Amino acid sequence: MIKVKRIDHVALAVADRDAATRDLAALFGLVTGARETVAGQQTDVAFLHAGGAGESSGADTAVEICAPAGAVDGPLARFLVRRGPGLHHVCFEVDDLRGALATLKAAGVRLIDETPRPGARGHMVAFLHPAATGGVLFELCEQAHAGSAA
Amino acid sequence: MIKVKRIDHVALAVADRDAATRDLAALFGLVTGARETVAGQQTDVAFLHAGGAGESSGADTAVEICAPAGAVDGPLARFLVRRGPGLHHVCFEVDDLRGALATLKAAGVRLIDETPRPGARGHMVAFLHPAATGGVLFELCEQAHAGSAA
Repeated sequence: MIKVKRIDHVALAVADRDAATRDLAALFGLVTGARETVAGQQTDVAFLHAGGAGESSGADTAVEICAPAGAVDGPLARFLVRRGPGLHHVCFEVDDLRGALATLKAAGVRLIDETPRPGARGHMVAFLHPAATGGVLFELCEQAHAGSAA
Repeated sequence: MIKVKRIDHVALAVADRDAATRDLAALFGLVTGARETVAGQQTDVAFLHAGGAGESSGADTAVEICAPAGAVDGPLARFLVRRGPGLHHVCFEVDDLRGALATLKAAGVRLIDETPRPGARGHMVAFLHPAATGGVLFELCEQAHAGSAA
């Protein structure tokens, strides 16, 4: 239906981003990459990379550590109350996010985001509804391109 | 403490391996790779790869679809009863699984498997206890090497 390129990251929901990032980096020998607050999602995120490549290669699948930022009533905060810390979502990279969402919508796939919105690292992102994918939350992302308008 | 090489796969727990594999492959344009029953873990598994590489490259992070096989009282069956279908674990590849486990054990990290056991695709695998990693289940794997004794 659509054709994803790779798994961009797998995300963990935690209460304390910096503590979890530090602990997992130390335990597994991971390198910390981008660390930022995604205002539109009310989350503090940090990316961990294996192999010492940092975020330079862009080819490795990263671990994203996500914690609620500020307001405590966002989707991630509710997830933590309901399920506790744990795996949260898997993000596939696509070449054309807007086109992918149009294809999925036309096929009747339930979407959380029908249009791309700004995510971490300058990517545009959109979430599919887990009801459409057997209970698993999937995100799609399109990398920022030089010269493109975010 | 240890140094992982890459994320080998992210695993989804489902009730019906073949239905989930077929649905996700169709939805995201993924290619089905290895499909087998892992007797020691009482699971039916299948691997999905992005980018059309199948399992030939060995470098991409795969999606592993896991379902209980046969007996309904294994760990995966209990997970499904308790939490429903969803993300189950993340597996990091290491070069020396036995050495990694020894390092982790010496550091007081709680392990489910203190010694490697056979996993899917001829890999040797071991699970860390989620209590040691903030509630997230992590697996380590070492790829099978030509000529090595499993």
